[in-house]
Amino acid sequence: MTAHTLQLIARPVGLPKDSDFALIEAAPREPAAGEITVAVSHLSLDPAMRVWMSDAKSYWPPVVLGEVMRAQGIGRVIASAVPSIPVGVLVNGMVGTQSHYVGPAAGFSVLDLDLLKASGVPSPTWTLHALGATGMTAWFGLHDIGRIKPGETVLVSAAAGAVGSIAAQLAKQHGCRVIGVAGGAGKCAWLMDELKVDGAVDYRAGSIGAQISALAPKGIDVYFDNVGGEILDAALARLRRHARIVLCGGISQYNNTERAPGPSNYLAMISARATMQGFVVIDYFDRYKEFALAMGALIAQGKIVAREDIVDGLENFPAALRRLYQSQNLGKQLLKL
Amino acid sequence: MTAHTLQLIARPVGLPKDSDFALIEAAPREPAAGEITVAVSHLSLDPAMRVWMSDAKSYWPPVVLGEVMRAQGIGRVIASAVPSIPVGVLVNGMVGTQSHYVGPAAGFSVLDLDLLKASGVPSPTWTLHALGATGMTAWFGLHDIGRIKPGETVLVSAAAGAVGSIAAQLAKQHGCRVIGVAGGAGKCAWLMDELKVDGAVDYRAGSIGAQISALAPKGIDVYFDNVGGEILDAALARLRRHARIVLCGGISQYNNTERAPGPSNYLAMISARATMQGFVVIDYFDRYKEFALAMGALIAQGKIVAREDIVDGLENFPAALRRLYQSQNLGKQLLKL
Repeated sequence: MTAHTLQLIARPVGLPKDSDFALIEAAPREPAAGEITVAVSHLSLDPAMRVWMSDAKSYWPPVVLGEVMRAQGIGRVIASAVPSIPVGVLVNGMVGTQSHYVGPAAGFSVLDLDLLKASGVPSPTWTLHALGATGMTAWFGLHDIGRIKPGETVLVSAAAGAVGSIAAQLAKQHGCRVIGVAGGAGKCAWLMDELKVDGAVDYRAGSIGAQISALAPKGIDVYFDNVGGEILDAALARLRRHARIVLCGGISQYNNTERAPGPSNYLAMISARATMQGFVVIDYFDRYKEFALAMGALIAQGKIVAREDIVDGLENFPAALRRLYQSQNLGKQLLKL
Repeated sequence: MTAHTLQLIARPVGLPKDSDFALIEAAPREPAAGEITVAVSHLSLDPAMRVWMSDAKSYWPPVVLGEVMRAQGIGRVIASAVPSIPVGVLVNGMVGTQSHYVGPAAGFSVLDLDLLKASGVPSPTWTLHALGATGMTAWFGLHDIGRIKPGETVLVSAAAGAVGSIAAQLAKQHGCRVIGVAGGAGKCAWLMDELKVDGAVDYRAGSIGAQISALAPKGIDVYFDNVGGEILDAALARLRRHARIVLCGGISQYNNTERAPGPSNYLAMISARATMQGFVVIDYFDRYKEFALAMGALIAQGKIVAREDIVDGLENFPAALRRLYQSQNLGKQLLKL
């Protein structure tokens, strides 16, 4: 059996290049005690990957050069030295960018396909987004950090992306008025027609601030920010009193090669008595059940739209990843192996 | 009797100029029912005045052009149409930049000189700083917004200024490790020798970040920010997990004539799980007693150093105000009439 591993071999400067990675062929070793071998079928591509590739201080250590790139995925167990994980089951875990994961089973979860099917989950890949870390990011970001309340106006950037599209729908379900920001008329139409948001801002179509003002003349109570940059500044200038900014990410900033200016309008937080709070979803992993019950119920009722944007082939990982930073994905970017 | 009023006649561009104001001479009218006449003795000069002068949206409406500049002050009541406020008492209130205030007594407080003296308060002018809005800003900023805990490392910018010098001392009293940032060796020596902070950063003497790192190698738990700009960026890069940034002011930004870049390092708040929160002291005025009891006890024990930086003459208001933005004041800037 041959297997492929994609290693990070250079710290990207700007957008990750194909040459920042090397595809290595090698037969997978046998799993030792406590280990499993997973034939990976799908990888989750996440904006934060760009942060993991850099040597900047972050919530996780940088990926080591010459080693497999960190990635969450799902796949089938094809060899197991763990009694509780039989060959043949599907698992979800940090498999890395490789066709075969061989390593500790700790941190992996076995997917209960019958339960998923009975709960109306369309595909096990949903555990990589709506029912996984993506959904948790949206859920805890809105509730724990944003403290959203019914009737409030919630602005979501990258609303056609993985986290943003879930956040927009969860805020709607909670009784909020939701405005999504996305790039292009097609994505904005999708926000309105499929996600049923109350308003969509096309950041490629004229003044972002004027569009937000037209849709939220009284301002914003909660801004769920995945983007930073110009959209953050426009939101800061339109905060209602006691507004909360959920600092989830800054995808517009991750590929900067020069130090970019921060949000000019941050001082507006003083007169708005506003709060900006950063968070990382891994802190909430021990509350997965609380999330899964609520999200599972919404999915079972057919109330969550989750779109998958699938690219084929491990060798296309860098190109698929670039799609995120170039705003080409609609919904969750996955890589199929 | 002649009286003088300083009117704001132009919205300043950059630093307030003398020509942005006009000194008008006029005899004060008689107080009507519910009104008092106050012969103003001291005005409080506050960084926020620059914000009130602009037509930017803020927590208070802009000062109207052609009207007296908004200012808090103390003075003696020389005429009264309010039975509970006899002629001769000292009052504290929003008197404006004028020798005589004639208007509603609502919002004014009568100073109990015997009580102040018995409590060890060196001068009634302290009700314009340590025992007034300045002290409240420090107190509620540290406790309600910063949620300081004993043992934490607290960084305070403009630590030789009015709010900063009180905040630094209150954090020390609460058992925190305190690092003050100020401009120049003289101010830094004052921080160390008089305010007894644990470390002082001279922002004019080399890398701010390197100085903070040397004094707080494990990072900062709470940053009390009066300044913004480069110091805020240096603090953001050195946040400990769950750090709090108390967004009190941004004196380095108030006189910008061009849109200034915001804090580049704001995304560090994500991996630090940090919170930045803006607040305005007027929201805490109804909790004055809670503050006064605590602060009064510290003052009575001689534990609060408050320095007054006094300029003479109403006509020197613009020059005295510029001292704040040019970092020339040490302690509270007052104008004596």
